Amino acid sequence: MDKLTMTEKLVAAKLEKGVTWEVAGEALGMSPVWLASACLGMNSAPAEKAKAISEYFGLDEEVATALEVYPTKIWDQAVPTDPLIYRLYEVVGVYGETLKEVIQEKFGDGIMSAIDFSMEVDKIEDPKGDRVLLTLNGKFLPYKSW
Amino acid sequence: MDKLTMTEKLVAAKLEKGVTWEVAGEALGMSPVWLASACLGMNSAPAEKAKAISEYFGLDEEVATALEVYPTKIWDQAVPTDPLIYRLYEVVGVYGETLKEVIQEKFGDGIMSAIDFSMEVDKIEDPKGDRVLLTLNGKFLPYKSW
Amino acid sequence: MDKLTMTEKLVAAKLEKGVTWEVAGEALGMSPVWLASACLGMNSAPAEKAKAISEYFGLDEEVATALEVYPTKIWDQAVPTDPLIYRLYEVVGVYGETLKEVIQEKFGDGIMSAIDFSMEVDKIEDPKGDRVLLTLNGKFLPYKSW
Amino acid sequence: MDKLTMTEKLVAAKLEKGVTWEVAGEALGMSPVWLASACLGMNSAPAEKAKAISEYFGLDEEVATALEVYPTKIWDQAVPTDPLIYRLYEVVGVYGETLKEVIQEKFGDGIMSAIDFSMEVDKIEDPKGDRVLLTLNGKFLPYKSW
Amino acid sequence: MDKLTMTEKLVAAKLEKGVTWEVAGEALGMSPVWLASACLGMNSAPAEKAKAISEYFGLDEEVATALEVYPTKIWDQAVPTDPLIYRLYEVVGVYGETLKEVIQEKFGDGIMSAIDFSMEVDKIEDPKGDRVLLTLNGKFLPYKSW
Amino acid sequence: MDKLTMTEKLVAAKLEKGVTWEVAGEALGMSPVWLASACLGMNSAPAEKAKAISEYFGLDEEVATALEVYPTKIWDQAVPTDPLIYRLYEVVGVYGETLKEVIQEKFGDGIMSAIDFSMEVDKIEDPKGDRVLLTLNGKFLPYKSW
Amino acid sequence: MDKLTMTEKLVAAKLEKGVTWEVAGEALGMSPVWLASACLGMNSAPAEKAKAISEYFGLDEEVATALEVYPTKIWDQAVPTDPLIYRLYEVVGVYGETLKEVIQEKFGDGIMSAIDFSMEVDKIEDPKGDRVLLTLNGKFLPYKSW
Amino acid sequence: MDKLTMTEKLVAAKLEKGVTWEVAGEALGMSPVWLASACLGMNSAPAEKAKAISEYFGLDEEVATALEVYPTKIWDQAVPTDPLIYRLYEVVGVYGETLKEVIQEKFGDGIMSAIDFSMEVDKIEDPKGDRVLLTLNGKFLPYKSW
Amino acid sequence: MDKLTMTEKLVAAKLEKGVTWEVAGEALGMSPVWLASACLGMNSAPAEKAKAISEYFGLDEEVATALEVYPTKIWDQAVPTDPLIYRLYEVVGVYGETLKEVIQEKFGDGIMSAIDFSMEVDKIEDPKGDRVLLTLNGKFLPYKSW
Amino acid sequence: MDKLTMTEKLVAAKLEKGVTWEVAGEALGMSPVWLASACLGMNSAPAEKAKAISEYFGLDEEVATALEVYPTKIWDQAVPTDPLIYRLYEVVGVYGETLKEVIQEKFGDGIMSAIDFSMEVDKIEDPKGDRVLLTLNGKFLPYKSW
Repeated sequence: MDKLTMTEKLVAAKLEKGVTWEVAGEALGMSPVWLASACLGMNSAPAEKAKAISEYFGLDEEVATALEVYPTKIWDQAVPTDPLIYRLYEVVGVYGETLKEVIQEKFGDGIMSAIDFSMEVDKIEDPKGDRVLLTLNGKFLPYKSW
Repeated sequence: MDKLTMTEKLVAAKLEKGVTWEVAGEALGMSPVWLASACLGMNSAPAEKAKAISEYFGLDEEVATALEVYPTKIWDQAVPTDPLIYRLYEVVGVYGETLKEVIQEKFGDGIMSAIDFSMEVDKIEDPKGDRVLLTLNGKFLPYKSW
Repeated sequence: MDKLTMTEKLVAAKLEKGVTWEVAGEALGMSPVWLASACLGMNSAPAEKAKAISEYFGLDEEVATALEVYPTKIWDQAVPTDPLIYRLYEVVGVYGETLKEVIQEKFGDGIMSAIDFSMEVDKIEDPKGDRVLLTLNGKFLPYKSW
Repeated sequence: MDKLTMTEKLVAAKLEKGVTWEVAGEALGMSPVWLASACLGMNSAPAEKAKAISEYFGLDEEVATALEVYPTKIWDQAVPTDPLIYRLYEVVGVYGETLKEVIQEKFGDGIMSAIDFSMEVDKIEDPKGDRVLLTLNGKFLPYKSW
Repeated sequence: MDKLTMTEKLVAAKLEKGVTWEVAGEALGMSPVWLASACLGMNSAPAEKAKAISEYFGLDEEVATALEVYPTKIWDQAVPTDPLIYRLYEVVGVYGETLKEVIQEKFGDGIMSAIDFSMEVDKIEDPKGDRVLLTLNGKFLPYKSW
Repeated sequence: MDKLTMTEKLVAAKLEKGVTWEVAGEALGMSPVWLASACLGMNSAPAEKAKAISEYFGLDEEVATALEVYPTKIWDQAVPTDPLIYRLYEVVGVYGETLKEVIQEKFGDGIMSAIDFSMEVDKIEDPKGDRVLLTLNGKFLPYKSW
Repeated sequence: MDKLTMTEKLVAAKLEKGVTWEVAGEALGMSPVWLASACLGMNSAPAEKAKAISEYFGLDEEVATALEVYPTKIWDQAVPTDPLIYRLYEVVGVYGETLKEVIQEKFGDGIMSAIDFSMEVDKIEDPKGDRVLLTLNGKFLPYKSW
Repeated sequence: MDKLTMTEKLVAAKLEKGVTWEVAGEALGMSPVWLASACLGMNSAPAEKAKAISEYFGLDEEVATALEVYPTKIWDQAVPTDPLIYRLYEVVGVYGETLKEVIQEKFGDGIMSAIDFSMEVDKIEDPKGDRVLLTLNGKFLPYKSW
Repeated sequence: MDKLTMTEKLVAAKLEKGVTWEVAGEALGMSPVWLASACLGMNSAPAEKAKAISEYFGLDEEVATALEVYPTKIWDQAVPTDPLIYRLYEVVGVYGETLKEVIQEKFGDGIMSAIDFSMEVDKIEDPKGDRVLLTLNGKFLPYKSW
Repeated sequence: MDKLTMTEKLVAAKLEKGVTWEVAGEALGMSPVWLASACLGMNSAPAEKAKAISEYFGLDEEVATALEVYPTKIWDQAVPTDPLIYRLYEVVGVYGETLKEVIQEKFGDGIMSAIDFSMEVDKIEDPKGDRVLLTLNGKFLPYKSW
């Protein structure tokens, strides 16, 4: 089973079960962002987690196996068009140099890893309009000389 | 004075004064990320803040005026090459669809604003390697029907 | 049912019913532009409106459900080729800087939202050639400092 | 004098005179959008208007002559990055097909001219946040068969 | 019936009938260029002409209906590769600035319409090698100030 | 003297002399389109013509020499943005396949040369709006088998 | 039968017959390069040759007819990735300006035709490694003034 | 001295000396194509040849040194626009697959080197129009398995 | 059988057999990198090796034949998005100029062949985190003058 | 002093001193690849190393300071054109998928770091032609679930 079919099955099962990624994540002891990412095929799940996810959604072994596969991460749009995703791209464009300044001032020459990395989404209720809180947490990797 | 010259003057003055964006931000009562962004010319500063920044760095009126100018935000690389900035771009590519799923599940159809928006950088010390914590905080804007 | 199938069904039903977006919009109490946009799959419809649209065109529940889905907004052509759409793109290219000048002079540093946004099309009859009147109405969002 | 120098002189003179495009447009009997567009070098001004603009800003003949020159309209970014201009581009991407549907339903097969065209910007005050109103007015041009 | 199927049917019928676009155009009282363009799906035909074309080629109502549909004009190659089409693109690249100079010198600031437009192909026999004569005829549209 | 300087000198001299490309072309016995193209640096002029052009505009030997140089024909925009030039590009996009059909039907498999080629611009006065008439005349080159 | 199917049939028949393009070309009195090009669908074959090719490979009338069709020459990769083809592209990039210098020095201002053109591939045996000899033979086309 | 200055000096000296690449090449015992390529800065010359070239054109040591420098070979246009160079690009596009077929049939799996490579330009006089003969000679490099 | 089907069969057989590329490579006396590359369709296998691979995986003659076919090497993403592959691309971007300096200093003007080339992957165990060791081994090809 | 000036000074000093990167690296106790990379401005040097490099080449404090600056790593060509660098790009294109297979088989889901990374160039003398040996050594970073 390829990742595409796996995602279709998982999304359909989630709809039928009537749960959100948040509810499912809590039940499974996983972050909703990571869980969604694995189910959408952009991350692989370790064997136990793959099994737990598949069982939670009432799906079979094949789905668990597909969740374990290491994905080839491909996106087609160098510049995304969906407004929600574009705004994130815009943040990188507008604040990229700034973040480089501030991070490297704090940590030295290096980068924030996108591999040893996690991410959370929170909702801050606000009478003037609720706010989205994204938290990115990545290991700092210093450049080395040799 | 155009933004480019303004940035050169501010960066040189900061180097001479021997302060970081963090120290300067604390002294001025501004977030280091926002302060750096205004000094790099990617945000405009309200008149009072512009004056305060210019004075803090021992620069003249012209710099304050340039800080107030509304910038045209341009970046040349649709796909950034600097590794630190690219990793952020990669996060958008790998997790864009996932974030759309999780945010819209929590908030309904809409986006996280990149305008009514703020951002912080924190350092989490960790014996296995320090970690960068980025926090993005944007107002949720629902689509409207009409 | 995916958005593509939904659009095909709605467009066929509209043709059969022999109504225009304008007639349908008036009957349903919705703007023709918004209605067309939801039926073409570029906006989601709130549950009640989705039901009303589906019923108006004599279609079943599945279509209503598909109308409620939050779309991923994708367009393939960075520069559109269809002459009608290209002319709009050209307006953005020719007048973009000008609009930035005039809007920010009136409102301060910020943008016109494309999310909290509506749009109308009117026809002005004119013996020298009828004219198209497009009205874009978007909330002004000021940049914030922090 | 090339258009670039002309624009620099006009923008500096406007700043010194302390007027907005709106005030200047009213004084000169011209739309602020068109006036800004001519001064930014994206439209040519007829001789009389060119002279009036130049005199209003206290500039010499050369500026008037430069305003009369027919510009070669060039923009460098196929996809604009400035957030204000990008939002307009996004409107074309999201609503392009919809506008084609609605305009051609009302007018037949053809386009809205971007040449025989005018545009206005208005401010609608609103306690929940002011709104930008853009009005585009273009002649409808029907396709012909031959 | 979509435009693609329509084109396939028309091209097959033309082949079977053994006529050229020129012969068909003369029989139908239409320019061969316009006729080919409508049959290839890049222009819509008014109802009467659509019926006449469909009947001439011995095809049914559905083809006539498809000919009436307003097409979305899309081409995939920003720079065409077919040598015949590339040479036309090259003419635009090599002579574009020159044509702008000469047309605007003759007509003032404005453009040649590609909508209120027609085009003919003629053959000039020449012992040193026959020549292709393309004639483009478009309405001049002057820019307006407002 | 490079082509850029040559063009600046010729355009300035033409302005001072107060002639159009048409008047100059007639005086020199050359087509205005070709003359403009050579003066803009997109074609080389044979020695005699180069001398005649240079003398007509009261310029020196160096200009004549520069006119003789074989140009490297470069254009920066794969898709031109100036509206006048874009409309020509659009004609190639919309009618490219059609012209291939009609030309190859008349001439066989081959192309219209853009080298053994000439072009004229004419004005057709019309009470409903003057029209631009472009005439492209290129040698047909048949493909050969070998 | 479209060109794609035609190519598949010809390539399969060639494989079955166990001949090379060189052997087939010699038998048919055609250059192996031209023969391969026609069979791959990038050139049309005159009626007699089309018939001869089809018969040689034991295929029917339909293949002969497809060989006669004038192809639309399309390649998808502006920069080819296959190493053999890329090296040819690299030669154009590295030596393009040089060839322009040397050809125009020998022939005057003009180009080498890619239409009135033929090409051969030869093998030069060499103990230090065999060498490929490509010979391109194209008519020189001089620019004309008018 | 960088390659750009070197090329300017060599081209000026060649013009003054009144020789062609062919004459110079013959005098120096070098191929005109290679000589032009080295002088245009797209190949390095071994020390002795560099000295000989520099002396032949009456230039100093610095030019010889610059000729020896290993160039970074950069071209800006992925798709060249100059018609002479584009025709070569077109040959690669139209005949690339064909050449792959014919070369690999003759030599096995591998490529024609663009490094261990030479190229000649010849003129074939022909009453129907002279012809350009390009000869490319590159070592065949077989793929290896390991 | 095309390369795509071949790859699917080989990957499925490898999974069923439960071996890694390393184990299979050792058993077959081939490098795991080359073996994977041939099975993924990016290299052709000599007849004997093709037979050995096919037999090892329990597949038939057709697979062996497909392994022998000379592939057309195509990749779709000019800039790869998969993080593992992107990091390699980044190494080329960051260190390309440096490698040119160091290689040409050691070898003279020329390149490292990607054809007469092999590559190995090794694992270096390290308590602070295992390391990947890639070894690229390519023949140096000097430029030649002629 | 910006990185560009720094590089010019270092390269000139190296030329004058008459050393290679290898000799300089050995003298300074640094890898020639890393040393060249720092001097070309694509890596920052720790303070002590910066001082040592600057002194070795007989340059002043300013150069040492510039060597310490954290660079913004930018390359202009998404697809490099220089043949030496292109071959490396080609290796990534041809072997990218293969390396992903082999590395992830050995290490699990993750990547080879391009930050915690080093690289060496060696020369293998070979009577059939010397060979370049590139060794890339990067820390393996496993994806984490959370």
